[in-house]
Amino acid sequence: VKVGIVGGTGDIGEGMALRISQVHEVILGSREAERACATSDACHLALDEKGLPCTCSGVSNQDAVDRAEVVILAIPFQHMAATLSSLSGFEGKMVVSPVNPIGRKEHFFFAPPPEGSAAQQIARLLPKEAKICTAFNNIAAGSWKALDAPFVYSVAVCGDDPAAKGVVMGLVASIPHLAGFDAGPLAVSPMVEAVTPLLLNIAKYQKMRDVGIRFA
Amino acid sequence: VKVGIVGGTGDIGEGMALRISQVHEVILGSREAERACATSDACHLALDEKGLPCTCSGVSNQDAVDRAEVVILAIPFQHMAATLSSLSGFEGKMVVSPVNPIGRKEHFFFAPPPEGSAAQQIARLLPKEAKICTAFNNIAAGSWKALDAPFVYSVAVCGDDPAAKGVVMGLVASIPHLAGFDAGPLAVSPMVEAVTPLLLNIAKYQKMRDVGIRFA
Repeated sequence: VKVGIVGGTGDIGEGMALRISQVHEVILGSREAERACATSDACHLALDEKGLPCTCSGVSNQDAVDRAEVVILAIPFQHMAATLSSLSGFEGKMVVSPVNPIGRKEHFFFAPPPEGSAAQQIARLLPKEAKICTAFNNIAAGSWKALDAPFVYSVAVCGDDPAAKGVVMGLVASIPHLAGFDAGPLAVSPMVEAVTPLLLNIAKYQKMRDVGIRFA
Repeated sequence: VKVGIVGGTGDIGEGMALRISQVHEVILGSREAERACATSDACHLALDEKGLPCTCSGVSNQDAVDRAEVVILAIPFQHMAATLSSLSGFEGKMVVSPVNPIGRKEHFFFAPPPEGSAAQQIARLLPKEAKICTAFNNIAAGSWKALDAPFVYSVAVCGDDPAAKGVVMGLVASIPHLAGFDAGPLAVSPMVEAVTPLLLNIAKYQKMRDVGIRFA
């Protein structure tokens, strides 16, 4: 599938591009197409060095939406709504939310919007014809980027459109060592998103880095 | 340590007794001491058959609190408050909450009390001198009981008393194959408890049984 990454120059977006562009055509978007091209070039360089394939190209966020079949919203929750309101053309697209609304005091905590989760807010903000799935919420940016480290994680996938969920499960399975798990409808997203602040707390208090999960 | 299990005749309580009584003295409580004795006898029988040690004894819930150093509250959330109001003597005890407030529509969801989590409600209901920790929330009753199956899980531990948390982490580590992870203060409990309905959803929609987690 053609995978568009909105916010592809961020930490998570660039990490996703590094892994996904080895297996799928990745259209990496940014507010400024120039920055997207620079990140895309960096991906080509990093993967070429390892003798790995790379199909990345850098474009504007809007072009990433327009050209992709699956659009991944690799945007921090705080910029979510503003970014979506600046884009159009989501009708009929499969949209993946790896977005986690997280607050911080001494510890990290789940800070969802009134809709219950970032994914459910995205579903309200986008046209009804967009098919929203939650996926990739619990993988740290550092893990995406560390190409030489093991990348053995579980990915919970939620969504209300069975066909779109099937495509996203296939996308997960196509990335070596990742295992997708159907976690049910989009309404389960709060529980998936809340895992991320838990992992950040474990990293903090247990003194670890880039903690992920596996369902077993 | 001497481990008391309040609600030891329930599914989870009995499973915990089977595993923990191989390594620690377990004082298994129930509303009726007779039922606790029957469950304790069943534990002895099951472990004897496998040539495994068992130090279980059956008593009333109140005796389990009185005689234990660590008290595990193996009670469904709906009976939590009523059970605690019927018991006393928690002052100075280490109290472990594996309790998860879960609702169900088509899917399972996290349904916390106003305090934010079962553990935080327990902290409000018990005397201040009780030292509450969250632990064992994400292990299914079936996994505790399946003594021949692998029991390789991660356990997130939350709590505000460092010494009590240390003892609970030690208790976790003493059970073969379990790994404890310090997840921070008791205020992190909502995120730990919310993992359980997520695992129930994965079990339901992915058609699995007794799904658990590992942090990796």
